[in-house]
Amino acid sequence: MQAARARQDMLTKPQGSLGRLEELSIQLAGITGKSIPVIKEKAIIIMAGDHGVVAEGVSAYPREVTPQMVLNFLAGGAAINVLARHIDAHVVIVDMGVAVDVPANDGLIVKKVAYGTANMTKGPAMTREQAVESVLNGAQVVSEEIARGLDIVGTGDMGIGNTTPSAAIASALTKKRPKEIAGRGTGVDDEGLNRKISAIERALDVNKPDANDGLDVLTKVGGFEIGGLVGVVLGAAAQRKPIMIDGFISTAAAMIAVTIAPQCRDYLISAHRSMENGHGIMLDWLGLKPLFDLDMRLGEGTGAVLGISFAEAAGKILSEMATFGEAGVSEKDS
Amino acid sequence: MQAARARQDMLTKPQGSLGRLEELSIQLAGITGKSIPVIKEKAIIIMAGDHGVVAEGVSAYPREVTPQMVLNFLAGGAAINVLARHIDAHVVIVDMGVAVDVPANDGLIVKKVAYGTANMTKGPAMTREQAVESVLNGAQVVSEEIARGLDIVGTGDMGIGNTTPSAAIASALTKKRPKEIAGRGTGVDDEGLNRKISAIERALDVNKPDANDGLDVLTKVGGFEIGGLVGVVLGAAAQRKPIMIDGFISTAAAMIAVTIAPQCRDYLISAHRSMENGHGIMLDWLGLKPLFDLDMRLGEGTGAVLGISFAEAAGKILSEMATFGEAGVSEKDS
Repeated sequence: MQAARARQDMLTKPQGSLGRLEELSIQLAGITGKSIPVIKEKAIIIMAGDHGVVAEGVSAYPREVTPQMVLNFLAGGAAINVLARHIDAHVVIVDMGVAVDVPANDGLIVKKVAYGTANMTKGPAMTREQAVESVLNGAQVVSEEIARGLDIVGTGDMGIGNTTPSAAIASALTKKRPKEIAGRGTGVDDEGLNRKISAIERALDVNKPDANDGLDVLTKVGGFEIGGLVGVVLGAAAQRKPIMIDGFISTAAAMIAVTIAPQCRDYLISAHRSMENGHGIMLDWLGLKPLFDLDMRLGEGTGAVLGISFAEAAGKILSEMATFGEAGVSEKDS
Repeated sequence: MQAARARQDMLTKPQGSLGRLEELSIQLAGITGKSIPVIKEKAIIIMAGDHGVVAEGVSAYPREVTPQMVLNFLAGGAAINVLARHIDAHVVIVDMGVAVDVPANDGLIVKKVAYGTANMTKGPAMTREQAVESVLNGAQVVSEEIARGLDIVGTGDMGIGNTTPSAAIASALTKKRPKEIAGRGTGVDDEGLNRKISAIERALDVNKPDANDGLDVLTKVGGFEIGGLVGVVLGAAAQRKPIMIDGFISTAAAMIAVTIAPQCRDYLISAHRSMENGHGIMLDWLGLKPLFDLDMRLGEGTGAVLGISFAEAAGKILSEMATFGEAGVSEKDS
């Protein structure tokens, strides 16, 4: 990081004038252990799963949309496909726990832990064994991508109803009340929002997750795709790869990962602040400052992919810009 | 714009969930007159010029850096070259008024109005004829790029000392005091900042620019590269091309353009809020909300180029995403 900082100060621009792009390049140097980090191979890993809590009427969309959107990802027609093509990133689609069998497809990685979680308002969303399995599956997926040469990973999610467990995770870990965290997700009305807050309150009351035990929180109020993303964070950080965190669901997964292994926090980059209510509280808890805020609230990794483009640009500044000496440009008056 | 809005609402995502990317796509539809605007050919036009006011000790860098950086742009080693390559944009480099002759180069467009402006603390920075010439030269440059197929233009600048005339322009048009607008530019110390504020105060006092006459403001406290950028804005807007505005200097040019032709405002997109003091005041005056804020303060079009990547992505959302019907995805519960 010191070498990267020193190089930034030799490049043909006033020191610090590229602002957070410079800071980002230095963070990337620290993460990768390379003074000139190269971000070339890029992927978004989209974890999909269903949620028993949708029975409580917490989402504006029917549960069948989860597998339908998985098929849309596979066909290349979703927002994340468009944005990933825009920055030349690979999209990795993983069935972590969709409630039905998705038709077999070469582009789909099946790591299904179960056919959707249980309804967390009645008891734990999953067993502890399932929570471990979901994390290990996520770590395995990212490890295979890293073996193929991945330089940076972005997190993505698909799961109708999954802002509800994500808000429950955030509430459990930050100790903020569910109504301070929960938002409208994909667009529930006032009644839907009240049902959602009530479902989170009941889930926390029934399950009493232990905020010091990330796996316990995942078990009781999490989801399979969230567990998969926890594994992506832990697996990528363990191999010194930067992780671009998307929005509300990805941030909940990052919070569990940091609860399990606090040192992975330094490997995280927050792409954006989403529209979802408590996202700012969650980012503050993680100590992360998002790169941008475009009022997005889609998930899928759509914010992460734009953030990855900034990270790639930050790396290129270090590797491609001329120094004052190389370019024959005079330095600042002393 | 109505057609673009209607299409956004048919795409496989909750309505509005891509936030400002959706708004941007709709603005692009309005600017171009196409319900599915395509942003493919991209350019940053960097206008370079020198400033007589540097004699007042307003900059941290010596004046020779202007031509040195022009050579750096031509060699491809500056930050803007790196970031433009990152998004596959063309860099157009124009000598509008560098104080020396820059060695001839196929990559350099020479539209030199004069060898630097006069010292605006003693009288007008240029004649009204020169102001007109600088605007026309800028319009000609952008028109030639549009003739070659340009879809979007970003504004860039290079000129040691040019935050000083830019702050003077902003002060003249917003009626805010120079000390509320002026910042440290490329990095002057407290004494340098005081000299800068004093120079702006004297320039406004000596010249008394007419805030209702954009050309008068440009004449008295502007610069040749700023005039060139005014021409880029006017020329691009006249041909229905979106203009991505960079930071402090570009925004000052946009303010003059809007003073001359208020209707060009709708064709402007603000890429970022720069670190420079009064930039937020200037964007408010224009009624523009920047896409991001990365604490950048370099100029050259480095913020604009990242903003152009967002605009291209916004256009692709409209052209490449599947609709609910095409993808067989269920819509929101009614």
